[in-house]
Amino acid sequence: MGDFEGAGDVFLADCPARLAIELIADKWSVVVLYGLSRGPRRHGELLELIGGVSKKMLTQTLRRLHGHGLVTRTAYPDVPPRVEYDLTALGRTLIDPIASLTAWAEANGAAVLEAGGGARA
Amino acid sequence: MGDFEGAGDVFLADCPARLAIELIADKWSVVVLYGLSRGPRRHGELLELIGGVSKKMLTQTLRRLHGHGLVTRTAYPDVPPRVEYDLTALGRTLIDPIASLTAWAEANGAAVLEAGGGARA
Repeated sequence: MGDFEGAGDVFLADCPARLAIELIADKWSVVVLYGLSRGPRRHGELLELIGGVSKKMLTQTLRRLHGHGLVTRTAYPDVPPRVEYDLTALGRTLIDPIASLTAWAEANGAAVLEAGGGARA
Repeated sequence: MGDFEGAGDVFLADCPARLAIELIADKWSVVVLYGLSRGPRRHGELLELIGGVSKKMLTQTLRRLHGHGLVTRTAYPDVPPRVEYDLTALGRTLIDPIASLTAWAEANGAAVLEAGGGARA
């Protein structure tokens, strides 16, 4: 890890870098962060955008990302109440890595599926 | 998704791109792929390199990555038997996205941990 001396090591179980990987290397975290990379969204908008996510799973994912400083939660005093989620400055530094991962998935998903013989991972 | 027309969409639950995200957006997949990005490794070498992974979890992760065409498994007729794991050509296309993610984690892990008040994700 000479390149990242003192900055962390994902191979060490208790290193902050590993904890960060545990947080973002999660399918819902990736998809939610990607969904927010185009600007602020409400819970219901994300629910509609992201196929297959449950209300509960989306809420848990947003809460975890918010709790670790990657996502803001802003409640507007409207009637009915409006709550928007957005990336923080720290969260925005994830846009490039996440975009790189999703671009890979979009380009190679079919090959991965074919190799798996149609079986789910 | 105009940029990736026809190539998949991670927002769709049943799209190959989403299945690819499910496969790779997993903490052990990320760390194992990163471990293999420097060349072939034996099971025991990976076990030693990757802190906190159990034998069973490592075996399951390698089997899943192998089953989806990302990792080769080569058994050499040595005594004692020697089995090496390596990235396939498809797996090697993941080196850059994974390196981008781990570099982010190594640079920002401390900030993420601090925001979480020391709580695990």
